[in-house]
Amino acid sequence: MTIRRNILLTPGPATTSERVKQAQVVPDICPREVEFGLLLDSIRRRLVQVIHGEDTHAAVLFGGSGTAAVEACISSVVPYGGKILVLINGAYGKRILDICRIHLRPEQIAVYETAYDRLPDPAEVEHILFEDTSITHLALVHHETTTGILNPLDEIASICWRNEVKLIVDAMSSFAGIPIDLRQTPCDFMIASSNKCIQGMAGAAFVICRKSLLSPPEDYRPRSLYLDLYGQHAGFESNLQMRFTPPVQVLYALDAALDEFFEETRLGRYWRYCRSWEVLLEGMAELGFAAAVPDLPQSKLLTTFLEPDHPRYRFEAMHDALLAEGYTLYPGKVGELASFRLANIGQIDTHDIRAFLNALERYLAANDIVLPPRFKTLND
Amino acid sequence: MTIRRNILLTPGPATTSERVKQAQVVPDICPREVEFGLLLDSIRRRLVQVIHGEDTHAAVLFGGSGTAAVEACISSVVPYGGKILVLINGAYGKRILDICRIHLRPEQIAVYETAYDRLPDPAEVEHILFEDTSITHLALVHHETTTGILNPLDEIASICWRNEVKLIVDAMSSFAGIPIDLRQTPCDFMIASSNKCIQGMAGAAFVICRKSLLSPPEDYRPRSLYLDLYGQHAGFESNLQMRFTPPVQVLYALDAALDEFFEETRLGRYWRYCRSWEVLLEGMAELGFAAAVPDLPQSKLLTTFLEPDHPRYRFEAMHDALLAEGYTLYPGKVGELASFRLANIGQIDTHDIRAFLNALERYLAANDIVLPPRFKTLND
Repeated sequence: MTIRRNILLTPGPATTSERVKQAQVVPDICPREVEFGLLLDSIRRRLVQVIHGEDTHAAVLFGGSGTAAVEACISSVVPYGGKILVLINGAYGKRILDICRIHLRPEQIAVYETAYDRLPDPAEVEHILFEDTSITHLALVHHETTTGILNPLDEIASICWRNEVKLIVDAMSSFAGIPIDLRQTPCDFMIASSNKCIQGMAGAAFVICRKSLLSPPEDYRPRSLYLDLYGQHAGFESNLQMRFTPPVQVLYALDAALDEFFEETRLGRYWRYCRSWEVLLEGMAELGFAAAVPDLPQSKLLTTFLEPDHPRYRFEAMHDALLAEGYTLYPGKVGELASFRLANIGQIDTHDIRAFLNALERYLAANDIVLPPRFKTLND
Repeated sequence: MTIRRNILLTPGPATTSERVKQAQVVPDICPREVEFGLLLDSIRRRLVQVIHGEDTHAAVLFGGSGTAAVEACISSVVPYGGKILVLINGAYGKRILDICRIHLRPEQIAVYETAYDRLPDPAEVEHILFEDTSITHLALVHHETTTGILNPLDEIASICWRNEVKLIVDAMSSFAGIPIDLRQTPCDFMIASSNKCIQGMAGAAFVICRKSLLSPPEDYRPRSLYLDLYGQHAGFESNLQMRFTPPVQVLYALDAALDEFFEETRLGRYWRYCRSWEVLLEGMAELGFAAAVPDLPQSKLLTTFLEPDHPRYRFEAMHDALLAEGYTLYPGKVGELASFRLANIGQIDTHDIRAFLNALERYLAANDIVLPPRFKTLND
């Protein structure tokens, strides 16, 4: 039986394929069995292959949301004598700072914050590292899902590499969507989850770690039992098991999602997302919706649109009407900005985007909301 | 299509019904939508109803394993000036101590440890609380899955109540299996997961909290972002959402599992488990397997058997042979004891247990392992 296909224009959980949905329905298995350990091992290896890290990196899996894995990474790898520089230009950078503030002392945290519509300046980052040589780690959000902008991963990675600073990348909503090649872009820790561009189900997350950094320092003292990155890695290496009961069916779905990913290929998926994005942006401009940060590098996975200034326009009403037709819109997250967001990740394509645009056009017409078309082109 | 039915004689993840398996296959949904919030709210309310806490308690859900919820509870509710007494007679009591040692100072932790085959003595517990009035919290494992014994929840709860000590109960593998009535047994925090006697899928866990204790003290400072019990509760109360992406499909399965639970009724499930246990114990005794701790109160959900002393007996070989027939056995966890474990939770009944016993008998006969039958009856 085919299940109803909803189009989630949200930044994950995203629309999944019928195959991934059905992959959850497996015979019951004890996750301590070797058969399941081999599944986990295959998932781990293939997650690393997504970003070409097989020679240098290993994946550590957790049951939980992406934030659990971010907290596991930050709270485990910044040592008691370490200091982290957090780059912030949106809600997810702020969340990393929240995690740092819980686990680290104030003097262990440095912040370089720019406005939601400004990228961090690599020269400025280099200057901060030059001025404060006690900084041992840097945390960067690759795709800042608050706005849809893409932070300069390559430049920051080079700077960290040159300055011998460990780089932690929150790649939650870019991993498997935007090609990343660890052979070219040196990252020490890269974090993502099962339910975004990898197109699996929510419930598992992972940190892809440089293997040489997977032994804790001698004076290591975990800051959490469940979220102990080193303990989780050592446990798996010793017996092919996760230390605590894993989300079994979510992991079967992730395995199927990885099959799909490699069948589509890295570039195939990226191009599909890019094509969907182009159709979305053009269609939204024709309907009169302006992008919020058009002049910044775009992820092409998610776009923030300004709420139009029209007396009959209300986001909630538009959201509810489109939801009834199977399309889920996402509210904005930039505090000072009246905006909403549309993502184009997940198992959807230009046909779905065009169908959505038609549904939106019908909604606007039915409610007599006429907006002047926009023609501003977006920076690639 | 009906999926192959494996009989997991493991303490969870347990065998699930076809209905619960299929409940995972739902149309994609954004978990920030109201429809999903209402599902979460219904799950929360019904989890509390399982133990008759609807007038006094509220459930706080987390994505992750049961240990994540144990850590969320311990690390959140023991304040900086508090002290916890941990009762230990198995691996799960030790795990609580591990969590305490990470989050609390040594002077905040007291331990009352007995051997794996001894219950904590309520008089001794009362004495400890009388001697050390700085103790504010007590942690108890209800069903110690290390051995299958049942710790004296009612007595300990009364003692805590009389001494105004907050009681934290790890009910991971007893919740929904053994009837618990919070109206009779005053517990402040009770922790369990989605994949044991509630018969759902692994990936979610919860703390059922006395509502009057769900506001943090004024000087509260979370010890984790992801595992912050108060933050998780306040977040859900504000918008019917989990703060971080929930395991969507696992929660749909949990909802279906709760439907099944209330259809079967509390006592119906308990009696089914008890009948399975009686058939299992009698059959195993006839085949020559002795229970490890027969004189202690039994959970009737899991039993530890001593490894028989026979030259041709090997657990691994027996395990593998039975696994090939669809029955999963579980290794022992008591360090000093050559033992293995069989649980009888999950969607299985006496027919499955009898079929397993027949398969085991055939295996023993085929391998010429003849053991003298045991007739020791088990203490109820």
